[in-house]
Amino acid sequence: MSLIIGIDPGSRKTGFGIISQVGSRQEYVTSGVIRLESFPTFPERLDNLYTCLMEVIGQWSPQEAAIEQVFMGRSASSALKLGQARGVAMLAATQSKLPVSEYAARKIKQAVVGKGGADKVQVQHMVQFLLKLPGLPQEDAADALAVALCHANTQAGLIRVAGSRHSRRGRWLE
Amino acid sequence: MSLIIGIDPGSRKTGFGIISQVGSRQEYVTSGVIRLESFPTFPERLDNLYTCLMEVIGQWSPQEAAIEQVFMGRSASSALKLGQARGVAMLAATQSKLPVSEYAARKIKQAVVGKGGADKVQVQHMVQFLLKLPGLPQEDAADALAVALCHANTQAGLIRVAGSRHSRRGRWLE
Repeated sequence: MSLIIGIDPGSRKTGFGIISQVGSRQEYVTSGVIRLESFPTFPERLDNLYTCLMEVIGQWSPQEAAIEQVFMGRSASSALKLGQARGVAMLAATQSKLPVSEYAARKIKQAVVGKGGADKVQVQHMVQFLLKLPGLPQEDAADALAVALCHANTQAGLIRVAGSRHSRRGRWLE
Repeated sequence: MSLIIGIDPGSRKTGFGIISQVGSRQEYVTSGVIRLESFPTFPERLDNLYTCLMEVIGQWSPQEAAIEQVFMGRSASSALKLGQARGVAMLAATQSKLPVSEYAARKIKQAVVGKGGADKVQVQHMVQFLLKLPGLPQEDAADALAVALCHANTQAGLIRVAGSRHSRRGRWLE
């Protein structure tokens, strides 16, 4: 079993979600939203974001991290703010010795909903369905769980491909 | 005496410079450039940037940090990259319990060169002159020393203003 943390960084709210992966099966572990609006300065926001993410990682000990690649259609000003939060989120993973994988938004939606152009509500519903959650997850937590699911599927796909390759070479990996 | 660290963050190269401040006098302590181009992935770059800055802060124990506010005329893509490095640089300061002050580029140039529209070479020469350096500092290190000098001047100005106010109220602070 391996644990994957997905992170959806933002300068006001950062979502996180941890899932477990056993073979090709994924299960919900935990998720949440780190709210940063109440801190008056940006350095304080980043400091609290880092501290909270380090606490989550320390508590659950995931082995891998996944994060969304950012859509570049924003203004330079909002890209800078988002970049600051995203840098700190990636740092929390790397300082915890987790490999970080990045996935484009379209790929995440494709993996979770089945179409790259899905909207946020569709992502929330599919995350709820796939992880058998009792209610609709909060939007940022759903995005974080979605990137974790995308990573799990990608990894499972790689294992399957590797397995089939090996089986063609004599099934010595079984 | 207090030590101030100035940081000029970038996703390829980050400059840092530490100066000491005694009264209104500033002296050079150290400076350098953290080069990140050789790390193939962005998470690795950020991880090394953070580790290096934490080493510098741990070695010299500055009490305050200063960083340039970023010019927003860039593309969203480069703003995002710069934001990631900037977020990590600010985090190294806040995690070390240093207050972080931000200064606009024009204000830094005004403080160091005397005119807000000064170019990089003028900043390098004035930093060399003001800190009595034996040679021209590297460009990113010069920018970092310039923001530290700007912070020192601003703080010295505040102290002078506070002192004169107190003196009007009875000189009890002398």
